[in-house]
Amino acid sequence: MRTTEMINTYPAEISLDRDLLARVVDTLVACSQACTACADACLSEDTVGELRKCIRTNLDCADICNTTARVLSRHTGYDANLTRVQLQACVQACRSCGDECERHAGHHEHCRVCAEACRACEKACNELLAAIG
Amino acid sequence: MRTTEMINTYPAEISLDRDLLARVVDTLVACSQACTACADACLSEDTVGELRKCIRTNLDCADICNTTARVLSRHTGYDANLTRVQLQACVQACRSCGDECERHAGHHEHCRVCAEACRACEKACNELLAAIG
Amino acid sequence: MRTTEMINTYPAEISLDRDLLARVVDTLVACSQACTACADACLSEDTVGELRKCIRTNLDCADICNTTARVLSRHTGYDANLTRVQLQACVQACRSCGDECERHAGHHEHCRVCAEACRACEKACNELLAAIG
Amino acid sequence: MRTTEMINTYPAEISLDRDLLARVVDTLVACSQACTACADACLSEDTVGELRKCIRTNLDCADICNTTARVLSRHTGYDANLTRVQLQACVQACRSCGDECERHAGHHEHCRVCAEACRACEKACNELLAAIG
Repeated sequence: MRTTEMINTYPAEISLDRDLLARVVDTLVACSQACTACADACLSEDTVGELRKCIRTNLDCADICNTTARVLSRHTGYDANLTRVQLQACVQACRSCGDECERHAGHHEHCRVCAEACRACEKACNELLAAIG
Repeated sequence: MRTTEMINTYPAEISLDRDLLARVVDTLVACSQACTACADACLSEDTVGELRKCIRTNLDCADICNTTARVLSRHTGYDANLTRVQLQACVQACRSCGDECERHAGHHEHCRVCAEACRACEKACNELLAAIG
Repeated sequence: MRTTEMINTYPAEISLDRDLLARVVDTLVACSQACTACADACLSEDTVGELRKCIRTNLDCADICNTTARVLSRHTGYDANLTRVQLQACVQACRSCGDECERHAGHHEHCRVCAEACRACEKACNELLAAIG
Repeated sequence: MRTTEMINTYPAEISLDRDLLARVVDTLVACSQACTACADACLSEDTVGELRKCIRTNLDCADICNTTARVLSRHTGYDANLTRVQLQACVQACRSCGDECERHAGHHEHCRVCAEACRACEKACNELLAAIG
């Protein structure tokens, strides 16, 4: 990832801490990829019938983390209200997906790793929410 | 759009009204396309320097409407908490983008049409939020 | 969809026919939504174990149609080489997904409707490819 | 990124080298983020009027890399024809965007870094194309 390098070249002011922002973007992008991969790994399991909700939540979480990473990668015309509520949606998506993956973590390594990615992402989004106020 | 046709083939129960859901998905998808097109039209205006915030908000709104349409197109393992908060983020995105486009609606037809798409989308998301409770 | 309305407000020249472009964008957006919905409907079928490849191809086709619709919604700094190759990728995605859905069309209405959406989208992309030359 | 960790938990066979795949996905995801950030940085430059084509190509490249990363993160029901053509689209997107950013690399650090990300991504996609055959 070149997130830190890119954010340091932004030519105007950014009202949030650049290191924090870059770290949250990286965590979001990693979570989105993990969720896409976990949905696909679940789909290949013999027990796919028991993983329906996990696949669905993975797909939602992948989309929401992806969109949140894009919103946070833009600084021009910053709108705190929009950033805040998208982060709140992302916290919920990571919580729902982390909970669901955790239920299967004992049986499926991909769910265990994905749950970790979701927990890390929920935490990072909450840190940024605290900084936005 | 085949949204209604598709939702009527879903093989399990859906806890929300199918016609309402299909209508909201269509409105989201239309708003996302309008915002992508408006960002690009703004980019080609002589006065692009005055449309920076509009372009940025268009890009956010396009991404958020797109993701919200995907979340609402899935019914397996429905999670009301996740749907609700993503809809709330979308309401805010449509409001921010509608407000910003409206400021330029007198000068740019694309901003006028896009503001209409955003207003319609904000309204549709609020209707669905009321139905979810 | 406000695609035609939006494209008619674009303030500069567009080297392709605006009506054709708007029609292709609408077909892409409809196909993307149908594929997202079909993946989810397959996921809820009792026979989900036999629909793994269909779900996967649906997810790819949804993403590729979505991205192609965005590329075609932008006209500033038009690059025929990029548009052409993305359309070619989309033709292949629609063909793969249409073939796979067609195999299940007799058993699942969502696959039958989705196959129609994919065939229509493949055809529309090929028309635009012919116009680009 | 947990890409390598996730790919190593995939429960079935993968016909391509897992380390190569993970590396390409990481490069795609990094390029997509750089392009999103570069579009936004360009938008904030005083000389935004001269960066229109750069912004547009950045937006296309961000979307195409993002979709390609998703396609490569799925292994169930692998379709070499689809993977190949999406990679070819991505090579073109990275080449167009790398060329455009390079033209501004002397004036704008974000364009210089983004051009590097595009070149790395084009190279990685070509390596994978060679492996697919």
